[in-house]
Order: sequence, then structure tokens, then C-alpha cells
Amino acid sequence: MDIDSLTVPAKELYLDYLLGFVTENKISKFESVVKLRTKKLTIILENIFQPHNASAVLRSCDCFGIHDVHIIESKYPFNINPDVVMGSTKWLNLHKYSNPGTAVIDCITELKSKGYSIVATTPHENDLNIEDLPVDGKLAIIFGTELSGLSDAVLENADYFMKIPMVGFTESLNVSVSAAISLFYLTNKMRNSTTDWQLTHEEMLNIKIQWAKRVLKSPELLEKKYFEDFPDDAINKK
Amino acid sequence: MDIDSLTVPAKELYLDYLLGFVTENKISKFESVVKLRTKKLTIILENIFQPHNASAVLRSCDCFGIHDVHIIESKYPFNINPDVVMGSTKWLNLHKYSNPGTAVIDCITELKSKGYSIVATTPHENDLNIEDLPVDGKLAIIFGTELSGLSDAVLENADYFMKIPMVGFTESLNVSVSAAISLFYLTNKMRNSTTDWQLTHEEMLNIKIQWAKRVLKSPELLEKKYFEDFPDDAINKK
Repeated sequence: MDIDSLTVPAKELYLDYLLGFVTENKISKFESVVKLRTKKLTIILENIFQPHNASAVLRSCDCFGIHDVHIIESKYPFNINPDVVMGSTKWLNLHKYSNPGTAVIDCITELKSKGYSIVATTPHENDLNIEDLPVDGKLAIIFGTELSGLSDAVLENADYFMKIPMVGFTESLNVSVSAAISLFYLTNKMRNSTTDWQLTHEEMLNIKIQWAKRVLKSPELLEKKYFEDFPDDAINKK
Repeated sequence: MDIDSLTVPAKELYLDYLLGFVTENKISKFESVVKLRTKKLTIILENIFQPHNASAVLRSCDCFGIHDVHIIESKYPFNINPDVVMGSTKWLNLHKYSNPGTAVIDCITELKSKGYSIVATTPHENDLNIEDLPVDGKLAIIFGTELSGLSDAVLENADYFMKIPMVGFTESLNVSVSAAISLFYLTNKMRNSTTDWQLTHEEMLNIKIQWAKRVLKSPELLEKKYFEDFPDDAINKK
């Protein structure tokens, strides 16, 4: 079943059915967390190859309410470390781009078509301070690979260049640190602004269906059974 | 030669001598960085055992202008990863506490005697939000070991309990991330406040002497030669 093809009332019914198999505790956690999730801000990781960095970024995304993470792995595969990621991937939507020739452009084109501005993070003097980045539009913050930073393809296609002000000898922060500070600062600023950062009702339904399926043991069987038993109520193609 | 025993004018003369062997570029960097260094805020790391975490924290300390880092290694030795730390230890003052029975208390007692309040970082509901921590006094922010967090000895002796607000399923941030966000947020708040966060003239001299010695090839020989040639001008015991 393609959940995207259901109407909103059909999604509500299907979610109710799935939640019948989920503990009260989990349901209440879903409700409180989904209200603070946002798609207004997203993260792109370009060929991050150290598992502890990749994992720490995913954990920060969950902690600060970011739902979508875009992963470019055209040069290095994206690996995570279970001790660092602490199960946080279960609560996120990971989008992967692996085509060696086009992954960067595929990712940027996809996000721009959805209205995101691409924000390259670099430690250069003349870049915008993080405090000055406007948070009223949709932002995709992109972080580069550990040793060489962002690729030329990213730098050529970025809409903003952003830096975190620093006052020491070392000229850049560790990538997981840089991502976490950006998320902490920008999500706070966004939530304290008048911008409409919350998910729509339908987006919340989609996410809760996704989460419910991820905590259930045999979601495919339940889904199959549900759509066999209640075809007329539930399957309402848009 | 015990540099601490010199008077301020003697330190100035000695620094001038050392800087004669340092490049103009480095000297100008020393000047700009030292003006933004602070001892008003310090970090304690309690038995952090993952080199990438330890290293990322040290790098963040340098980047945000923290000069002193206190390292408790009574349970696990403190190891760093050169690819992550990026040479930043050269610019910091590391204080180590390794006595298995007393390291935690040694460190806390030392810092309290210097006027620091101990701030334990925990993810508990009832703790002070980072935004509400006062930054007018001297603060030592302590971060616990990766898996089990802060020890009872720390929790019993802390003056404040601070948390970074989170909105996801995962209940804690990676330690290097948590330290970096704390430093980013608190140093900014401190620098924008009326509190006197800058180093004294003598503290700046001490640090510049330390940095000069660390970039020179044979600082011990130069020091020996200097104090042999100019004993009367230079050695002015307090």
C-alpha cells in the first residue's frame, strides 16, 4: 500500500488501527514529539565518512526536532555507530543519494524544487554569521566531508554561505559539533519567530504512521490485513 | 625558571625576548586570540574515554576562547585523536587529575577555591535550562563519561544542574556536541553581558609566554640563555 495515495481521513483511520498495537506510553511520546517536529529546516551531509560524526549528527537531528536528513554518499558510504546514534535513526527520515556522477546535483535539485535554500557551512571570513541567516524560508544546511570540506558542486549551487563565529587558533569545528550548534541555534530562532515552522496535519499523520510501523514487529502483515479487511473505508485514492 | 615568580615588568621583558624568535604572523595571531580568551568559563571532562569526543571538545574550547580544560582521568585515561583535535591542545592549558580515589574531589575543590561554581550537565526535566544559567560568576561546566554520565561525587558537589532543551525521542546529546553547544551559547551570552570576562594583563602575558614557548623549537635552551645573560633585569621575584 502506498500511504501517500490515501486521503487524509483514510490516513487517520489507518493510524488509529496501527496505534491499537502500540503502548500508551509510546503513543503519548509520538504526540508530544510530532508537535515539535519541523521540515522547515533540513540537513544535508556530503560524504561524511566517520561513523561517530554521522551518528552524532543524526542524534542531534532527533534531539532538535529535524525530521528529514539528506545523505550524499557518492564518494564514501554513510556508516553509523550504534553507541553514538542511540537508536535515533528510527525517528528520522533519511534520504540517500549515491549516484557517483550526480548525487550532489540530484540532492540539491530535489531540495530546491521543494522550496529550500541551500546553506553551505564554511569557515570563511566573509560569510554570513549564523546569527544573520534569515529563518523565515525553508533551509537545507549542508555539511562537507571531514578533511576537504564541501565540494565545488555545492559551493557553486549554494544560496547562502554561513559560518559560526570563532575566536581561537583552530579554524574549523568538528563537523558533528558544527551541525549541532547550527541546529540548536536555528531551531530556537525559528521557534521563537513568527514563521510557520510546524508540520501540517497531514505531515503529522504521515510521520506517526511511519513511527508506528517502526515500533511494531510485523508492520507489513498488519498493513496487509488492514487493507484486506477494510478496503472501502480505507483506500480512498486522492 | 618558574615564570609565576616573575614580576609583571620582568614577564614583559621575557616575552619580548621570546617573541624575537617568533614570526610576525604568529605574533599578530597571539594578540588577536589572547584578547578574546577567557578564564571566566572552564570545562571539566570526567573520564571521557572516546578519543574523538575528547578531541572534539578540546577543539571547541580553542574555537570559543576557553583557555583552561580540567581532565579527570581516574577511571579511563584521556586519549586524543590527532585528526579531530587539529593541533588545538597547543593553545590550551590542560589540568589533569588522575588519583583513583580523589580525582573528582581534587578537581572540584581546586576550582571552588578559585571561585568557580560547578555546573553539572544532565538531561533531567527539572534542571535549569541553559538560557537561565547566570553568567556573571565564574563557571566550570562538567561533562560526564559517555555511557553512564556524571558520577555521584559530581552530582553531590554541583552548584547548578543545567540542561540543553531537547524535543526528540533521544534523551541526551553526544558529549562533544553537548559541550560545544554549551560553550557556543555561554561564551556568546557572557561576551554580550556586562560581566568582566577578559583576561588581566598579567594573565595575557602568562599565556603569550606559554604560546611562544610552544611554537619554538628549543624553548628550554632559550630560557636558560635568557636568564643567564640578563639576570638582574629579568629575575624580579615577587
